[in-house]
Amino acid sequence: MEQQVNSPHYLALSGGVGGAKLTLGLSHVLPAEQLTIVANTGDDFEHLGLTICPDIDTLLYTLAGINNTALGWGRQDESWHFMETLKALGGETWFQLGDRDLALHTIRSQKLTQGGTLSQVTHFLCQQLGISPNVNPMTDDPLKTIVKTTQGTLAFQHYFVREQCRPVITGVEFEGRHSAQPSAAFSSALHHPYLKAVIICPSNPFVSIAPIRSLPGVDKALNTRPVIAVSPIIAGKALKGPADKMMRELKIPCTALGVCEYYGSLLNGFVLDEADAHYSQEIEAHGVRTLTTQTVMKTLDDRIRLAEEIVTWINTL
Amino acid sequence: MEQQVNSPHYLALSGGVGGAKLTLGLSHVLPAEQLTIVANTGDDFEHLGLTICPDIDTLLYTLAGINNTALGWGRQDESWHFMETLKALGGETWFQLGDRDLALHTIRSQKLTQGGTLSQVTHFLCQQLGISPNVNPMTDDPLKTIVKTTQGTLAFQHYFVREQCRPVITGVEFEGRHSAQPSAAFSSALHHPYLKAVIICPSNPFVSIAPIRSLPGVDKALNTRPVIAVSPIIAGKALKGPADKMMRELKIPCTALGVCEYYGSLLNGFVLDEADAHYSQEIEAHGVRTLTTQTVMKTLDDRIRLAEEIVTWINTL
Repeated sequence: MEQQVNSPHYLALSGGVGGAKLTLGLSHVLPAEQLTIVANTGDDFEHLGLTICPDIDTLLYTLAGINNTALGWGRQDESWHFMETLKALGGETWFQLGDRDLALHTIRSQKLTQGGTLSQVTHFLCQQLGISPNVNPMTDDPLKTIVKTTQGTLAFQHYFVREQCRPVITGVEFEGRHSAQPSAAFSSALHHPYLKAVIICPSNPFVSIAPIRSLPGVDKALNTRPVIAVSPIIAGKALKGPADKMMRELKIPCTALGVCEYYGSLLNGFVLDEADAHYSQEIEAHGVRTLTTQTVMKTLDDRIRLAEEIVTWINTL
Repeated sequence: MEQQVNSPHYLALSGGVGGAKLTLGLSHVLPAEQLTIVANTGDDFEHLGLTICPDIDTLLYTLAGINNTALGWGRQDESWHFMETLKALGGETWFQLGDRDLALHTIRSQKLTQGGTLSQVTHFLCQQLGISPNVNPMTDDPLKTIVKTTQGTLAFQHYFVREQCRPVITGVEFEGRHSAQPSAAFSSALHHPYLKAVIICPSNPFVSIAPIRSLPGVDKALNTRPVIAVSPIIAGKALKGPADKMMRELKIPCTALGVCEYYGSLLNGFVLDEADAHYSQEIEAHGVRTLTTQTVMKTLDDRIRLAEEIVTWINTL
């Protein structure tokens, strides 16, 4: 798809469920050629011989409208016969894989084995699922999020799924970050001549956004571009996932303000929930523009409305 | 499991459905330590990143009593959500994999990748499925059945499943047969001091039994041991699979007598169906003892009754 180089462009950085919701809203509001979606791949791992990319998959299923809203991950109308049998045969069952979900992992793994890049394979899956614009991995290279805890070092999915985020976190590392390169689509959007804004979605700053920022040159480029972030913390709590628990353990104030200060000088603008309106003045005093609005996205309408407000607001910055 | 070395021993060589039925009967008639089951692995192939062993699986599912009798392959109570989704996502669908069946292939593939031998992995699966005696692969090494046809050379599953045996066969080759070794259990049973008989199950002589015979030293050993075969051809037809079509294409008379002559001097005894009783005299004239009986196995009782008759008859040879 040829990009209109003189059209404004938007780059969304996304982790899991919260990021995917806003990205869905943005995909309704912006023409496909004006939006680049970049997914965290630090969570990706090999399991049962399959390459599993949880954040890419959440984006794919959400954008295709087939995500499992009850579970918060995986596909809707899922069945579990593979998993039941795997258990009966003494296989590993700590990571749940639905029968339908499994097909996506299998195709991806097969195409990667045949030499496709993760970008190519993800674009193929977008095409099959009727998704536009394409979802892009942050990198085609291996980069693994490692969680340091008081009980030792854990691969991300072992921390997140197997241990259910119970261990107390002391830090996060990104294995392979020096040799990994941003994907072509990511790099191209990051340096787009008409980039209106990088939108950091309401995703976990430490394990969803930090891996993206850890890639060589990314943070440096972000510092020269207009960047806005949407707070994943509302009234001191994460709607989903361990962001709030992590902030407490990392001794970062568990508030929208804490998130804003963590991103620091990277930000030109910050979107916070009405419940956190009282932080607005302090944030603005630091030279960061704010948009205070309803940021909880329960329905598709919520997602589109929030995306619309954000895009409109970006154009006033 | 320690073998009683002074007990009589039986070695069953099996391919797919017909072989598995008789093997199930034998497993009811003989104590586990007196029976070694060896499966053809020439059909094994890599597909969607999985190692699939069709003949081992047919034996496992049949011996565990969970085979799909309606389909003639795979597991009973199967669902196809993986396959439906694979198709929708543009994946390869010529080889059908049920959701439950997939779990077995996944565990096997994972354990092979981790360094287990096919024998070890198959024994593990037997244990999980509550099967005794163990099913053994003919070899732990790669050996691939290649079908030569008038349309060119085909990997076995491409001939058998993808092309549904339509191409006219001109010969069969076994890739890797010079470097593959019989598995330890197979070799041990073949040279067992109290071996009563090798039982060639009613399986396809050309693509189920020939791969086993093609392993270094096997045919030579078989020539020195008591060997009986059960005809897979009844009244000029194979109950299942392409054995009859292959015989016609290979210009071998498509009769029980044709099968017996194909095995030739390897045989001490031959089991043929009542429908083929008229061949008995000619076969006996060649010095091969015959058992003429009902060989169609529709029910479990049929399988046990045939196995009992064969074992009793072997003891008169």
